[in-house]
Amino acid sequence: MGGDAGPAAVVAGIHKSAGKNPDIGFILHGPEADLQRLVARRKTLGVRVEIRDAPGIVSMEDKPSHVMRHGEGTSMWSALESVRNGEATVAVSCGNTGALMALSMIRLRRLPGVNRPAIAVLWPSRNPQGFNVMLDVGADIRADATDLLQYAMMGASYARNGMGLQRPRVGLLNVGTEQHKGRPELREAHELISAQSETANFDYVGFVEGSDIPGDTADVIVTDGFTGNVAIKTGEGTASLIGELLREAFRYSPLSRLASVLAITSLQRLRKRIDPRRVNGGVFLGLNGTVVKSHGGADATGVSAAVKLAFQLAQTGFTKKLAQRVASAATLTQDVSAKDTGPKND
Amino acid sequence: MGGDAGPAAVVAGIHKSAGKNPDIGFILHGPEADLQRLVARRKTLGVRVEIRDAPGIVSMEDKPSHVMRHGEGTSMWSALESVRNGEATVAVSCGNTGALMALSMIRLRRLPGVNRPAIAVLWPSRNPQGFNVMLDVGADIRADATDLLQYAMMGASYARNGMGLQRPRVGLLNVGTEQHKGRPELREAHELISAQSETANFDYVGFVEGSDIPGDTADVIVTDGFTGNVAIKTGEGTASLIGELLREAFRYSPLSRLASVLAITSLQRLRKRIDPRRVNGGVFLGLNGTVVKSHGGADATGVSAAVKLAFQLAQTGFTKKLAQRVASAATLTQDVSAKDTGPKND
Repeated sequence: MGGDAGPAAVVAGIHKSAGKNPDIGFILHGPEADLQRLVARRKTLGVRVEIRDAPGIVSMEDKPSHVMRHGEGTSMWSALESVRNGEATVAVSCGNTGALMALSMIRLRRLPGVNRPAIAVLWPSRNPQGFNVMLDVGADIRADATDLLQYAMMGASYARNGMGLQRPRVGLLNVGTEQHKGRPELREAHELISAQSETANFDYVGFVEGSDIPGDTADVIVTDGFTGNVAIKTGEGTASLIGELLREAFRYSPLSRLASVLAITSLQRLRKRIDPRRVNGGVFLGLNGTVVKSHGGADATGVSAAVKLAFQLAQTGFTKKLAQRVASAATLTQDVSAKDTGPKND
Repeated sequence: MGGDAGPAAVVAGIHKSAGKNPDIGFILHGPEADLQRLVARRKTLGVRVEIRDAPGIVSMEDKPSHVMRHGEGTSMWSALESVRNGEATVAVSCGNTGALMALSMIRLRRLPGVNRPAIAVLWPSRNPQGFNVMLDVGADIRADATDLLQYAMMGASYARNGMGLQRPRVGLLNVGTEQHKGRPELREAHELISAQSETANFDYVGFVEGSDIPGDTADVIVTDGFTGNVAIKTGEGTASLIGELLREAFRYSPLSRLASVLAITSLQRLRKRIDPRRVNGGVFLGLNGTVVKSHGGADATGVSAAVKLAFQLAQTGFTKKLAQRVASAATLTQDVSAKDTGPKND
């Protein structure tokens, strides 16, 4: 119920996904009558969808702390509950990100060994696969060295299971690539991640810079949620400004308008390549269960892309594999951290 | 001597500037024989240029700490010395940013009341003037609330003198626009900047997000040097990726190649609009003297743009006006900070 376009966009999106993939089943959460009416309009959807009545709605403006106390009975709560009790493998939501993370924390709980869960997104890049994984992009504005190590482990596991990379390259975001650069926690994380890369089966490429986010240096970009959030919003804003200016340029003269007609297929291909709807879905990592956060403004194409990602993660048994990775890393980190920074609880 | 392209690009750049603007005089710093040879090739330049022999060179790889101890006799040192002794109004350099900031700190010294100098850049945006000022983009990776207030004052002064805005709109970069968001020092800076905006003659628009950097919400974006550095590099990288993909799209088919010929004037206009060379010049703020840092890879067009900016700042008496602003703010801040966070030395 939570997206800007309401449940109609969600139902249109799962209809699209259902048409493409016969192996997905859906559990829809929300006011039963509303959902039944929307589903009834899509004939092929009927047998593939179960509806769970949940009359409450979390709005985009609700504060996470309020939703944590009063969220029971909302569609968001109900969707997470279906993952918690094993009915669903993955939850997909277009709703309020802060509330979704807060509810996910209290209902699904963190994986043993994870201090701060993270939100990972895919970002258009020069990589062979066309995208980088970047995390955290806003689950928590803080991250210490051990958190950053966990993000590296979780991001690598996501790249293996969500993008099919055998041995992802992991980079740590900083203001320069030299070893002496950056904040103390970054230099400490540099040592921790470097020490774990062999055991955890990824290549650690060291410090990377903002220009490497759309680049081909790494497959996983690790950073704290403050920096990651500013970076993706700056990149999105820059891309959208260029798109606007490009449309203006093509409208400028009769010749340029003719040019835009001739180039339309090529331009559509470019648009598709960097269309944020195609990679719609921030994934919450570090919980007992996988949650895919679709963009609030997602239309049918966006919802369908988020469902596709959720399906792929479900198929690869991602949640379980991630839990094993983090658990084994936590044991190892304990030794390293105990020596370097004093005892830790994980 | 410090740019990637060496002194030839610098001399070509000032030649370009000299042709456009009869009121600029140049003092060139570097090995005399080399510079004389380059200047002699440009006949119109002879009478406009003085040469100061400085045989030493700061390379792009030199560590700032090394240059601080052994930098005397380099062209960089000599250029800053000419600002220090009043011969030059502004210094322009294409060299090593870290070394230039370190030398500027010890030779020009900070303005009274400034704890951390900042580097400000212009960023393509939807503003009527086409650009935002953003600072700090990398002078210092840390910034406390008082530093952020000083960046706001200095950025507003730069927008007034470098961009001709009477009453710039200042925004503080955060992960959301709500008052409760972000790190404690950001919430504290929010209060400080808000309290000063009337006296300091700017409009404070509150918290802004990454998407506002290329937007039309503010004219001055205030942030710490870590976040600012990641943001500009992410934006530059995203723009460059889109440019590459656009060129690919236009090469794809005979039709799209024809289209690119028809649209060439419009595309060149777009390119010019977002060309980083046109706004080439990070300005060091908070020192007794203005230093413009041109991009290391700048060609003649880039150097000429940096000289144009330097000239404009010199003409408006920017250094002196900035010093007055910061001095009067320091007095006021003292009262606010003493109450909020204990006594400060400035």
